Amino acid sequence: MSLMNDTLKRIIPQDADARARARTRLEQLTMPHWALGRLMNLAEDLAGMTGSLRPPVKRKAVVVMAGDHGVVAEGVSKFPSEVTPQMVFNFVRGGAGINALAGQVGARVVVVDMGVAADLSDLAASGKIISRRVGPGTRNMARGPAMSRDEAIQAVEAGIAVALELGPSTDLFGTGDMGIGNTTPSSAIAATLSGASVREVTGRGTGIDDEQLEHKIEVIQRAIDVNQPNPRDGLDVLSKIGGFEIGGIAGLILGSASLRKPVLVDGFISTAGALIAQRICPAAGDFMIAAHRSVERGHRVAMAALGKEPLLDLDLRLGEGTGAALAMNLVEAAVRILTEVATFEEAAVSKADK
Amino acid sequence: MSLMNDTLKRIIPQDADARARARTRLEQLTMPHWALGRLMNLAEDLAGMTGSLRPPVKRKAVVVMAGDHGVVAEGVSKFPSEVTPQMVFNFVRGGAGINALAGQVGARVVVVDMGVAADLSDLAASGKIISRRVGPGTRNMARGPAMSRDEAIQAVEAGIAVALELGPSTDLFGTGDMGIGNTTPSSAIAATLSGASVREVTGRGTGIDDEQLEHKIEVIQRAIDVNQPNPRDGLDVLSKIGGFEIGGIAGLILGSASLRKPVLVDGFISTAGALIAQRICPAAGDFMIAAHRSVERGHRVAMAALGKEPLLDLDLRLGEGTGAALAMNLVEAAVRILTEVATFEEAAVSKADK
Repeated sequence: MSLMNDTLKRIIPQDADARARARTRLEQLTMPHWALGRLMNLAEDLAGMTGSLRPPVKRKAVVVMAGDHGVVAEGVSKFPSEVTPQMVFNFVRGGAGINALAGQVGARVVVVDMGVAADLSDLAASGKIISRRVGPGTRNMARGPAMSRDEAIQAVEAGIAVALELGPSTDLFGTGDMGIGNTTPSSAIAATLSGASVREVTGRGTGIDDEQLEHKIEVIQRAIDVNQPNPRDGLDVLSKIGGFEIGGIAGLILGSASLRKPVLVDGFISTAGALIAQRICPAAGDFMIAAHRSVERGHRVAMAALGKEPLLDLDLRLGEGTGAALAMNLVEAAVRILTEVATFEEAAVSKADK
Repeated sequence: MSLMNDTLKRIIPQDADARARARTRLEQLTMPHWALGRLMNLAEDLAGMTGSLRPPVKRKAVVVMAGDHGVVAEGVSKFPSEVTPQMVFNFVRGGAGINALAGQVGARVVVVDMGVAADLSDLAASGKIISRRVGPGTRNMARGPAMSRDEAIQAVEAGIAVALELGPSTDLFGTGDMGIGNTTPSSAIAATLSGASVREVTGRGTGIDDEQLEHKIEVIQRAIDVNQPNPRDGLDVLSKIGGFEIGGIAGLILGSASLRKPVLVDGFISTAGALIAQRICPAAGDFMIAAHRSVERGHRVAMAALGKEPLLDLDLRLGEGTGAALAMNLVEAAVRILTEVATFEEAAVSKADK
C-alpha cells in the first residue's frame, strides 16, 4: 500500500465526544458565557483534533516548503528565481522574517527543499535543511503541465513523510512556503477549486504593477486553458497548475491530519496547498486552523472555499509561515483557557441572574 | 506641583528621529516592501515611543483595575456586584481568564483595588493586590455625579502612581478592568466623548436581553441628562459618569506615557479610560496601542474616537486585560522583526527588479 493511501485511510473526523466535553467545561468558566469568543471555538476544535481536554501544543514546528516555478519565465514575478535559494540560505542563517517570528513563539523552523532551481546539497548533507527534491523547479505551466501526475504524488508523499518524521517531536505544525513566482500557481489553484474567475483571485504577489498584473492574469488563464485541470481531482490540479512546494504543503497537512495533530495554515500559497489537501481528503479540513488573512487578492475567496475563518488579519503578505507562527500564540492561549481557567464552582463565583 | 500636573508635563510626542530610523531599516529587510504590514507599523511606533531601535518589551505587566458602580442599583447588569470581589479573589488565586492569557505571554498580573464594594484589606496587607481605594464603589450616576472632581483626580493619580511604581520593573504595560456594571459608565463616556448617540455605543455587557438593553440605554441617557458632563473636560466626564477603575486606567496610561513606555489598551472599558486620558492629554495617544476590537457594541465607535485600529478581532468581551495580554505577543513579534531580520545587504539577497 502506498504512503498516500495509507495516510488517507488514517484521516478521520474530529473526536465529537472530546469536543462536547470541552464545550461543557468552557461553558462553566468564570466569565460571561463564551466571553473569549473565537479562542473558545479554537479550544473546542483543539480538543476535537487531539481527542484530549489537555491538547498538547508545546512542541511547535513551522515547515517551510521551498520550490521554484518554470512559469517565472513568463515574467510574472518582480523578483528573480535566484532569490529562492538565497532565501533558503537566509532561513538557515536565521535572518528571515520566519526565523524572528518562530523564535518569538518558540517554534522550530524546518526548511524542506521540494525542488529549488539550485544545488542545495551541501545544506542537506549538513542537516540544515531536509531534501525532498522532486525536480529542479516545475515546468512552465503556461505551456503544459507543471509536473507529471507521478511527480505530484511524489511531492504530496514527501510532505506526508516530513510530517511523519517530525511527528514524534512535534505537537503543533505550521505550514510555510518559499518560491519565487508561487502566487501564480496558487491563484490558478484557487480559481480552479473555488470556481472564481482568475481576475478575482490574482494579486500583486511581491509587488508587481498594474500592467504586470494584467499580464499575470493572462498567463494564469492560459495555464488553465492549456491544461484543463479537473477540479474534482486534487492531484490533477496540483500536477497541471501547481508547484512542488504546494504539493509538499498539501502533504504536510495530510500527514498532520493522519497524526491527529493541528496544523496552522499560513497565507495564500499555504491555502492553495490546503485546498489541494482538502480536495484529496475532505476530512483533513478538521485538522486545519486558518492562521491569518493575507492582503494578497484572492486569499479571502480561497479561505471561503476552504470553509475557514482566519484568526489574524494584519496585512501580511510575506508567506514563509510567518502568519502561522504568529497564530501559534493564539493556539497556546486557547489551550490555557481550557486547562487553566477555573469554573464557577471551582472558584465559588456567583453566576448570572437568570 | 501635583502628581497629575507633573506627569502631564512629562508626556511629549513620539521620537520622530527614532521612527524614521526604524522605517529606514524596516524598508531594507529581506522581504517584499513592508510585507509584514501592521507588524511593521507597530515596530515603527514602538521605536518612536521608546526612542530606541531595540525597543525593550520583555518585562510585561497587565494591570487590572477593579471598582464597583452605584449605577448597578438601576438593574443594568446581569451579574450582582458581589462578583467584583469574588473575581478579585479569582485573579489572586490565578483562576481567571487573564491569569491564563498573561501566563501564555509571560506577563505579571497586578490587581489594583480602586474602589471595590467589599473589604479587601487582607489581600492588600499580604501584598497580593495594590490598594488605591477611592471609595466603596461610585455613587449612582443616574441620580447625580458618580464621584466628586477631587475623587476623579485621586483615581487618575492612583493610576499614575501604579505606573510609576511598576515602571522600574516593567517595559510594556497592558490595561485591564474588573467591575460589575462598568460597561454602563463606559458607554456613557463613549457617547459623550465621541458624539455618538447612547444607543450606538450601548451593548449587552455580560449578556442582558433586549428589554434590559432598552432599560440600560435609558439609564445611561438619564445619567448624561442629569449630570451634563462637559466633553471638553476629561476629569469632568470621569467624575460625573465614570468609575474609579476607569479613572485608574486613564492614570495608568498617562503614567506609562510619561515614562515613554508602550501601553496596550484592552477592550471597551479600557478604551473609555483611554478616551479620558487622551482628553486630559492628547499626546498620551502616542503611547497607546489598541489591543483588540471587542464584540461589545460601541467599541468600534470608541476606537474610532481614539483614532486607533485594533490589532486583534477575536469576538472577545471579557475585559480583565485579556485582549491586552494576547496582543503582547504581537508587540514582541514587531520588536523581533525590527531587531532580528536581516537586510538585503546583510543577507546578500537580490532585490526586486525596478
